[in-house]
Amino acid sequence: HRMKLALLGAGRIGQIHAANIHHHPRARLHAVADVNAEAARSLGERYGAKASTDIDAVLADPALEGVFICTSTDTHVELILKAARRKLPIFCEKPIDLDLAKVDTCLAEVTRAGVPLMIGFNRRFDPHFRSLREAVRQGEAGDVEIVKITSRDPAPPPPAYVRVSGGIFRDMMIHDLDMARFLLGEEPVEIFATGSCLVDPGIGEAGDIDTAMVILKTQRGALCHIDNSRRAVYGYDQRIEVFGSKGMLQAANPLPTTVTRYTREAVLSDKPYHFFLDRYPEAYRAELEHFLDVVTGRAEPLVTGRDGRAALVLADAALQSLKLGKPIPIPR
Amino acid sequence: HRMKLALLGAGRIGQIHAANIHHHPRARLHAVADVNAEAARSLGERYGAKASTDIDAVLADPALEGVFICTSTDTHVELILKAARRKLPIFCEKPIDLDLAKVDTCLAEVTRAGVPLMIGFNRRFDPHFRSLREAVRQGEAGDVEIVKITSRDPAPPPPAYVRVSGGIFRDMMIHDLDMARFLLGEEPVEIFATGSCLVDPGIGEAGDIDTAMVILKTQRGALCHIDNSRRAVYGYDQRIEVFGSKGMLQAANPLPTTVTRYTREAVLSDKPYHFFLDRYPEAYRAELEHFLDVVTGRAEPLVTGRDGRAALVLADAALQSLKLGKPIPIPR
Amino acid sequence: HRMKLALLGAGRIGQIHAANIHHHPRARLHAVADVNAEAARSLGERYGAKASTDIDAVLADPALEGVFICTSTDTHVELILKAARRKLPIFCEKPIDLDLAKVDTCLAEVTRAGVPLMIGFNRRFDPHFRSLREAVRQGEAGDVEIVKITSRDPAPPPPAYVRVSGGIFRDMMIHDLDMARFLLGEEPVEIFATGSCLVDPGIGEAGDIDTAMVILKTQRGALCHIDNSRRAVYGYDQRIEVFGSKGMLQAANPLPTTVTRYTREAVLSDKPYHFFLDRYPEAYRAELEHFLDVVTGRAEPLVTGRDGRAALVLADAALQSLKLGKPIPIPR
Amino acid sequence: HRMKLALLGAGRIGQIHAANIHHHPRARLHAVADVNAEAARSLGERYGAKASTDIDAVLADPALEGVFICTSTDTHVELILKAARRKLPIFCEKPIDLDLAKVDTCLAEVTRAGVPLMIGFNRRFDPHFRSLREAVRQGEAGDVEIVKITSRDPAPPPPAYVRVSGGIFRDMMIHDLDMARFLLGEEPVEIFATGSCLVDPGIGEAGDIDTAMVILKTQRGALCHIDNSRRAVYGYDQRIEVFGSKGMLQAANPLPTTVTRYTREAVLSDKPYHFFLDRYPEAYRAELEHFLDVVTGRAEPLVTGRDGRAALVLADAALQSLKLGKPIPIPR
Repeated sequence: HRMKLALLGAGRIGQIHAANIHHHPRARLHAVADVNAEAARSLGERYGAKASTDIDAVLADPALEGVFICTSTDTHVELILKAARRKLPIFCEKPIDLDLAKVDTCLAEVTRAGVPLMIGFNRRFDPHFRSLREAVRQGEAGDVEIVKITSRDPAPPPPAYVRVSGGIFRDMMIHDLDMARFLLGEEPVEIFATGSCLVDPGIGEAGDIDTAMVILKTQRGALCHIDNSRRAVYGYDQRIEVFGSKGMLQAANPLPTTVTRYTREAVLSDKPYHFFLDRYPEAYRAELEHFLDVVTGRAEPLVTGRDGRAALVLADAALQSLKLGKPIPIPR
Repeated sequence: HRMKLALLGAGRIGQIHAANIHHHPRARLHAVADVNAEAARSLGERYGAKASTDIDAVLADPALEGVFICTSTDTHVELILKAARRKLPIFCEKPIDLDLAKVDTCLAEVTRAGVPLMIGFNRRFDPHFRSLREAVRQGEAGDVEIVKITSRDPAPPPPAYVRVSGGIFRDMMIHDLDMARFLLGEEPVEIFATGSCLVDPGIGEAGDIDTAMVILKTQRGALCHIDNSRRAVYGYDQRIEVFGSKGMLQAANPLPTTVTRYTREAVLSDKPYHFFLDRYPEAYRAELEHFLDVVTGRAEPLVTGRDGRAALVLADAALQSLKLGKPIPIPR
Repeated sequence: HRMKLALLGAGRIGQIHAANIHHHPRARLHAVADVNAEAARSLGERYGAKASTDIDAVLADPALEGVFICTSTDTHVELILKAARRKLPIFCEKPIDLDLAKVDTCLAEVTRAGVPLMIGFNRRFDPHFRSLREAVRQGEAGDVEIVKITSRDPAPPPPAYVRVSGGIFRDMMIHDLDMARFLLGEEPVEIFATGSCLVDPGIGEAGDIDTAMVILKTQRGALCHIDNSRRAVYGYDQRIEVFGSKGMLQAANPLPTTVTRYTREAVLSDKPYHFFLDRYPEAYRAELEHFLDVVTGRAEPLVTGRDGRAALVLADAALQSLKLGKPIPIPR
Repeated sequence: HRMKLALLGAGRIGQIHAANIHHHPRARLHAVADVNAEAARSLGERYGAKASTDIDAVLADPALEGVFICTSTDTHVELILKAARRKLPIFCEKPIDLDLAKVDTCLAEVTRAGVPLMIGFNRRFDPHFRSLREAVRQGEAGDVEIVKITSRDPAPPPPAYVRVSGGIFRDMMIHDLDMARFLLGEEPVEIFATGSCLVDPGIGEAGDIDTAMVILKTQRGALCHIDNSRRAVYGYDQRIEVFGSKGMLQAANPLPTTVTRYTREAVLSDKPYHFFLDRYPEAYRAELEHFLDVVTGRAEPLVTGRDGRAALVLADAALQSLKLGKPIPIPR
């Protein structure tokens, strides 16, 4: 049986999920909805799915068995609630919302509705990071004492995007904050954030920074460092290091090929992938696989609404720390 | 439009191609034929294709646009000829046949029929080796002087298989011999082969060796070394090095993950993939992609019947060299 | 001509310098002084140098051309001043003193005496870090935006040592703080430090931490992160990363051998060196080489008394930040 | 006590040994002899050794405890015999002689004289290869089945040198042939050699080749491949791989620094060392260390006259194989 899924939002990330759903033996892209009729039509046609601009009509279809929410952030809560009322298992891209109060209201309703909600922190499903995390869980690093996460984008977004993005902590570092929680094995109790605008003055004019560093501390005293930059000329740079009483685990950037060139001048290897879609294709496929297990009741979501909320709390605290110029205790 | 393809042979490698055809946006698995009715039925059912034990009936279907031959080696020539008479573009797994005279007759008929024939030397489509070869073509190594190819299987096949395989040169090293031709850029004129039975005495009793080394020489004097073993406890080991007047290019084994472990005892990284299906999934997909371009006339086969024949000639010469204990000139 | 040098302090680090002086074609170990008569005698005998417990007598020798101060930290200032009055070029191990006021008085007198003073931040002379720094200076990373320094000892010192060491920032991280200044190319204006006692409760009882993280910020907004641990089971771990507008430079741990082992279980390489004397032998030799150039007037000290002071100021500020739980502006 | 050693031959390699002897705590350079008076004088002056053009006078000195023979190959046998008559322990650079009959006569006399003779196959003392070999001896690769040795010089010697060198097998590959014996753990019984002149036509005119490949086979059936080139634009390339029933061991080229550069174009690391003196400084030191142990009777030579002879036998057989165009059995 192929599960009938609806995709809300036919943009860049929606197209990724649509392709994966189409090619998955246990799933079928049943319907696509987007406010842009042409985007919906084009994607629907490609995969033989109904296309519509009317989300309510799409959700009303009794054949539906699950929904992917890939619309703009400001619509997430409303669509989650509609899907929850329809008792549909929900996959929603991060973040749930930029407003914590709205997130809380939303999660409470989802809980009442009793439907599973999974948030799209795709990196948890990356095979390299997943293998690292599994090793941490197996105790290969012993007691975790230091976690270091590097996350740098190849090129900065336009300042216009920055203005509505919620800022670097909620838009970009939120992935790393989720990864920190995933790896630390306990909740951070304090955060210190600092940063600068070094890459694009337009980002500074939009009220944001483009280079950031954060230190998290847990109750037990474990420390986590994150660094972010909005520009890395050598490509998309995503690395993790976990250090503990029994040793160290590192996940490096996978490279497109294993070819090395020895020349008169130097020894050259490939650069990391340039774009997140090239870096994380397996993660998106594994994310879908897991969601299908959630829909069929075989698994609890690996990334819950609680996780989505917790990462947002950390991002908000980071922003507050940056503004106040001092460490901030993490609210419970 | 999705090209309707028939798959002849529903074994291990046939199943790989079936899955790739099914998931490819430009292809459709139209029919599956196998002497084993259950194998054909099961694969056909999985991908919505007609299943049959009657290859002639399958090939008679006028809707057919191309054919994949994945049956046992001794049936290749017969099926190629049938498909050629039907004027269908043909993909055939290597080798065409173990008998060179039969191969020549077959290729002559295929030429007369005017249908494209592509041979399944999948490694040419591996992204790592392809990138290496492209660099060689671009002159990054300068004039090629030394090529070194390592190819080791994780575990030996059963002696019963060895007995019908045509021996290590025609069954296993044939891939490396094709790669040597692909990289040297000119034909070898001489081959020296030697080897031993070190892994499994049963292989020796079957009249074969399990550890082999070969040196090829071209007209211009370029040298190529190949080493094979039927057993590598650390996994499937496939590496290439090309050395020339301007430097060296190497393609290493890709690893499942980039995770490194630093322990009290050592620094550990992943082993290579253990099995060729894990090592070469992208190669099989790219091979199909290329075949579809061949079917639609966009591309000439990157691996022709001539290439299939030339690798067999080298394998036969290697065997003769081993038997005679001296280098053998390569017949034209 | 071989320059006649006196060594004050015949302990572990003094013995390193003594051996290097003895083997250097431009230097001679003229005298060794230590409060421990047996230590002085044994080292003097090994290298044909006069041995004494009377530092004043050693310094009074008119043949002397330079002095290495390798005694315990609390005697550094007194010995620097004695040597300065003798108008001898001075090499002194870090730190000058744990008390900034004493350091200032000392440096003022050294300046008045007009003798060169070089401080023993050996890592500046390590070939890997030196090459990294030269690349930074050549602009290979572009404008420096992020510096990351990892520095972990193989095993913690005894709590008794910790008690008199001045704490992790002044005893251990001071090397990294110096390296941060060396690489950033401008002075930090703010520091945030945090840490925990995770390795040895005895270190906590001695009033110190054993796991630390720091973030430095410069006027221009460049960020530097340092992490320290007093224990790394896989060995002495010293790595640096510099990231900027034109790319990234990394210096990894050198390994004892290039041997890699492929086994049924994993792929293994060597661990990093376990001990700083194995990790930095070339740095100590290059440090001596540079000091000889300083003595002969060919070079200005690459590590001045000012540098020694500046690293101490950063270490003191780190300690204050840790105590106050907030970032601290760096005093000029 | 410092052993008094005489150095015969003050050329490039002699100067290496002179410096190591001078700096070694257990050795003293007592005398230097060279037909070139200025070369002898200059080296003697640098290290406080007597200098002479009269080798007989040097060897007559009753204080002498050992001798290093670093003169041109054609004088080795004569000098070995003189030193043997003086009952001095002998270190002699490779090869003993290019004529096997002379070697045999020489070794017989040395045996009769009862003095230890050590041959300068320096690579056996390289820490990387030594560690590899120790692992092989410990059985880490299991039964050795495949050995692969790569050895490429950065730039070809002048044809005038080639003419008197004895050819690539006796001049260059002899090191690799010795290494093959060192690693295989049993004697090769057959050799096949081939090669081309691809680097410098002048080498061909001098009657030699500059690109070579060899396959050795042992009684047990283990195979060893060696490839040589007289020119590698990326530097001195020396790598070894040992493969067996329990896995694979590799020794890669050590690099000058661990610095990696990530740029817009590629990821760059250091090239291998360019010159053998930069590549093997530790090997030469360890070689001396071992010879001192031999002189004092603490150790048997790790590289005996027998080893020197055996490598020459292999080199001669390789040359014969090249000329005859077929594999050659190795004479006992």
